Amino acid sequence: MALVVVGSVAYDGVETPHGAVDRMLGGAATYISLAASYFTPVKLVGVVGDDFASEDAALLASRDIELTGLERVPGGKTFFWSGVYSADMNDRTTLRTDLNVFADFNPQLPESYRSEPYLFLGNIQPALQRSVRAQMHRLRLAGGDTMNYWINDFRAELLETLKGWDFLLINDGEARLLSGQSNLRRAAAGIQAMGPRALVVKRGEYGAVLLRGGCHFMAPGYLLEEVFDPTGAGDCFAGGFMGYLAGRGVALDGAEVDFADLRRAVIYGSIMGSFCCERFGVDRFRTLTHAEIEARYQEFKSCTAF
Amino acid sequence: MALVVVGSVAYDGVETPHGAVDRMLGGAATYISLAASYFTPVKLVGVVGDDFASEDAALLASRDIELTGLERVPGGKTFFWSGVYSADMNDRTTLRTDLNVFADFNPQLPESYRSEPYLFLGNIQPALQRSVRAQMHRLRLAGGDTMNYWINDFRAELLETLKGWDFLLINDGEARLLSGQSNLRRAAAGIQAMGPRALVVKRGEYGAVLLRGGCHFMAPGYLLEEVFDPTGAGDCFAGGFMGYLAGRGVALDGAEVDFADLRRAVIYGSIMGSFCCERFGVDRFRTLTHAEIEARYQEFKSCTAF
Repeated sequence: MALVVVGSVAYDGVETPHGAVDRMLGGAATYISLAASYFTPVKLVGVVGDDFASEDAALLASRDIELTGLERVPGGKTFFWSGVYSADMNDRTTLRTDLNVFADFNPQLPESYRSEPYLFLGNIQPALQRSVRAQMHRLRLAGGDTMNYWINDFRAELLETLKGWDFLLINDGEARLLSGQSNLRRAAAGIQAMGPRALVVKRGEYGAVLLRGGCHFMAPGYLLEEVFDPTGAGDCFAGGFMGYLAGRGVALDGAEVDFADLRRAVIYGSIMGSFCCERFGVDRFRTLTHAEIEARYQEFKSCTAF
Repeated sequence: MALVVVGSVAYDGVETPHGAVDRMLGGAATYISLAASYFTPVKLVGVVGDDFASEDAALLASRDIELTGLERVPGGKTFFWSGVYSADMNDRTTLRTDLNVFADFNPQLPESYRSEPYLFLGNIQPALQRSVRAQMHRLRLAGGDTMNYWINDFRAELLETLKGWDFLLINDGEARLLSGQSNLRRAAAGIQAMGPRALVVKRGEYGAVLLRGGCHFMAPGYLLEEVFDPTGAGDCFAGGFMGYLAGRGVALDGAEVDFADLRRAVIYGSIMGSFCCERFGVDRFRTLTHAEIEARYQEFKSCTAF
């Protein structure tokens, strides 16, 4: 049972205190798909120009990520973003954003994608997220993320979109902005009333909190020895979280509902985010093995149990 | 086996989004002692003026906190601090600091304190912390906290002081400042080389990390429904942490060394910090019961296990 992932596929220029790369594979859908691919088959939906390198397509294909839904615009250029991180890597400044073919992205799902049970909607225009969801007719679990820009300037559209989601991934500040509540538990209650029964609040290096009904689960962030490049870590969290749930065949409102599965999904999200930071861009996924993921899961357990 | 606590005893004026109190009992040693008193007998060392109210002494005494070491300066006034919190309570602005009798604090321990096995050194001048430690001659476990001011302006003295500590409680930013390392694991290794074999890094609402040798333990912050007043939360963390270790008879280098005890101490620290925030100043400790503490411990367990 495959997971459909929609979002940006891009080239990034990144500078961190550990070095700089002018142009490398990036984009939310790329990171989400790579992380999720360790847990479940993935089908990607996105758009690129004809500058999209065959070696980048090959990396995705090597992880068995289906690219039928990756539209290539002849004569178009792929979305490009560049930014520079602060010394502690907790802040970053965008240097350049060239939307290119992504500006006209209007995702049409291949027929072979439409009956898949799992859908993750990356951070794109809420109306497009809704359109993608409407194209799928056998969903068991659908959710995604969003950002300040849509919360502030496309609020009505976002609220309409969220009605159809089972879960929302969001960061602390966005949860407060969306709900108008500064306390996280109250913010979660407000957002759950908008539609998504489960909420995952990402807190960067500090971990994540999962809230569903009256229950919550708190996961601290994995303590890395060295952060090379945090680009994509939040998306890899999403990929690990959703990929694990899809791989387990979880449905939030079905008989299989299990809060324990959701907890483990949060931990796998944290783990995939932590691996992502160990190399520039997507490089860690060129070598990452299932055994390394399982070892980190056990380490996480031993560092949090009491 | 009692715990000796040294630090400020004060009156505070506090304004939060939930209200304001002009003058109420406060000070690091007060909060540390109150929190620790749920786990072990406490002997306080501090200084107040003769404006120190008998009802405040009575509150401390009601928790069996020994006050023989609380010096009263005739004609003197008690340390006063006031501040106002931001809307999200993550920042505060100091409005007034009147050191009063605290400016000449030179702690002399009563004879009855000097053979106790446990010592927590609150945030005072490093030379005074060292002097207190030197007055005790049967210590099993000693540690404390410090702040940016001492790290920046009294560095040599602080380094001399830290040599004699078993553990240090510190926040993220202070750990980075003291070690010169931005990565927390590297910062911890640097600080452990200065003396304290165990390091507890407090991260406010995000929890705490315990590091000792190659092991670490990560605890997320307790998710409160409502934060009334965060004043003293960090000190209550310290009191819960150290009080639990003292109550268990733990020595960091003895045969009883048990990383599991240290983990639980961090959780009890988080719990005592969380209770502190539920009312203004020390008010929560007027009613808090052991049963409530144990219930929160179980809740913490159920919200973090996976």
